[in-house]
Amino acid sequence: MPSWALGIDLGGTNIKIAVVGELEGILFEDTQPTDTSAGPEGVVRQLAFMADACYQRAVETLDADLFAGVGLGAPGAVDAARGTLSCAPNLPGWQQRYALRDQLRLRLEQAHGIKTSVILENDANAAAYGEAIFGGGNAFRDFMLVTLGTGVGGGIILDRKLYRGPSGTAGEIGFMIIDFEGENVHAGVRGTIEGLIGKERIVEMACSQKPDLSPRLMELCHRDTDRLSPRHLEQAAKEGDAVALRTWERIGSILGVGLANVTALMDIRKFVIGGGIAAAGELIFKPAMMQLHRSTLPSMHEGLEIVPARLGNKAGIYGAAALCFASGKPVASDA
Amino acid sequence: MPSWALGIDLGGTNIKIAVVGELEGILFEDTQPTDTSAGPEGVVRQLAFMADACYQRAVETLDADLFAGVGLGAPGAVDAARGTLSCAPNLPGWQQRYALRDQLRLRLEQAHGIKTSVILENDANAAAYGEAIFGGGNAFRDFMLVTLGTGVGGGIILDRKLYRGPSGTAGEIGFMIIDFEGENVHAGVRGTIEGLIGKERIVEMACSQKPDLSPRLMELCHRDTDRLSPRHLEQAAKEGDAVALRTWERIGSILGVGLANVTALMDIRKFVIGGGIAAAGELIFKPAMMQLHRSTLPSMHEGLEIVPARLGNKAGIYGAAALCFASGKPVASDA
Repeated sequence: MPSWALGIDLGGTNIKIAVVGELEGILFEDTQPTDTSAGPEGVVRQLAFMADACYQRAVETLDADLFAGVGLGAPGAVDAARGTLSCAPNLPGWQQRYALRDQLRLRLEQAHGIKTSVILENDANAAAYGEAIFGGGNAFRDFMLVTLGTGVGGGIILDRKLYRGPSGTAGEIGFMIIDFEGENVHAGVRGTIEGLIGKERIVEMACSQKPDLSPRLMELCHRDTDRLSPRHLEQAAKEGDAVALRTWERIGSILGVGLANVTALMDIRKFVIGGGIAAAGELIFKPAMMQLHRSTLPSMHEGLEIVPARLGNKAGIYGAAALCFASGKPVASDA
Repeated sequence: MPSWALGIDLGGTNIKIAVVGELEGILFEDTQPTDTSAGPEGVVRQLAFMADACYQRAVETLDADLFAGVGLGAPGAVDAARGTLSCAPNLPGWQQRYALRDQLRLRLEQAHGIKTSVILENDANAAAYGEAIFGGGNAFRDFMLVTLGTGVGGGIILDRKLYRGPSGTAGEIGFMIIDFEGENVHAGVRGTIEGLIGKERIVEMACSQKPDLSPRLMELCHRDTDRLSPRHLEQAAKEGDAVALRTWERIGSILGVGLANVTALMDIRKFVIGGGIAAAGELIFKPAMMQLHRSTLPSMHEGLEIVPARLGNKAGIYGAAALCFASGKPVASDA
């Protein structure tokens, strides 16, 4: 019997939660602003409250015996084995290691009477797993999800399973160095991919081509509000603007170099690209694919593919829930 | 009962073979120049002949029932699942895909009466597995072997098993790009680690510092025979020569950048460094470790380690044999 689970994406701004059916995907969902004012304990109370509401609504129509558990994707350093979260830069008061998994499990049981397993996973990993099961990576046994946004992140799927690495920090393609003697230093490291094509850098890259900028882009570069954004650049490129086209080509090329390094090191040849910046689509994918070919040996060209992610900002809740399905048998919903 | 196996390292210059005991390590070994004059078939005949001689000598004292098989490490593109070798740059006439594993198995059975399984593996992977079981990686569950020589190669061990990647080409750290806009192009790819610190490049790097060269190094740069080699640079650095010290520091730093990328992407934090160039030891390891720290986020610093490989040019035969022990039960030696 297909089961169902709760998938949660804990972000610095919002908490997203959904009831996900193993076959149907998202059945219904909810979003609330993250309340970090009462520290980790407050966040746990909010998570449990939202999960309880979704759970109660779900069991009106779904079989409680087929509930597979709660999956939670969170930003920062997640120790999946111990269920702890630390160093979450977007969650104030979260510098210490905190037993998020067990605290949420206890809270759900003691305050809401829901006895369930909880799986905690890094948000990028959860998103990669979501794309693997429900999204753009579904056709691939092995692939890497790369998310292009404010930062550049990633998650790795090997043999249809999440590859976490020995300490759970695998997939940090944003911190891969491709320009070790370059000028750009980001988060203390020189020449990283995130430092070169993080969202802010893309805007700077366009604005720095001053003499060639169209009046429209030039104006946007200097505005305080509605300032030049990747979306403007996407629009301009589609209208044939030379600076915008050149900017996307450079972003794609830099991404392609990073993907080539993944191919050389891990022999991964399928890439799923997500995140807000990836909305530019072929403007990025085409130069990335050309660069990926240029930057790898011919013996590694077979099977290279770059495809768009399909779940958008829901990849995390899909993946968090899917981890519950993967973890084995459904968990009884009450003691 | 501990078993024994034959480990073979097929190189462009020599074929090395050894009888390896599961507990004892190498019991005895033989080396012969590789005879490529009669193409792949000729090499198979030579391999079978050498294996037969070792096998016959081994069964004088070892139990034939505990023979675990023949492991063969080979250069080029190995398809371990299919047992084929193609694109072996140092083996003339080996451009086509050739069923090396099955041909050797057949030859051993039909011409020598030895019925055995044969495992074929890429030479760098075999070396990594050798270091994992018998050498410098023995203490690590997850590590990467990096070999510094004429080229830069590598093999990855995850959870004490060889990580081959989906197509079997994983571990090519030499083709990782760390200077994507640099001047150096090697094998058609710009800014790779092999292009920056392959053996020839190291010598060039030293010779290019002309104004600062000591008379002794300057003389070696211009000789035709006994030309400047990494060994000379090692000696000079140990005597305090500034150019030599600076050269090793740069080599170590570049290596460190590459290792940092492995840490970011795969969360591997243990590195075993082998190959002829690695004989320079701390002259490379110290700057590599400093750079590895500089090039990774503080959250990834825990557990970082760089150690020397311990098996030298015998890692391949150790590893090839060890793959037979790992593959399961001993194989009966005759039909």
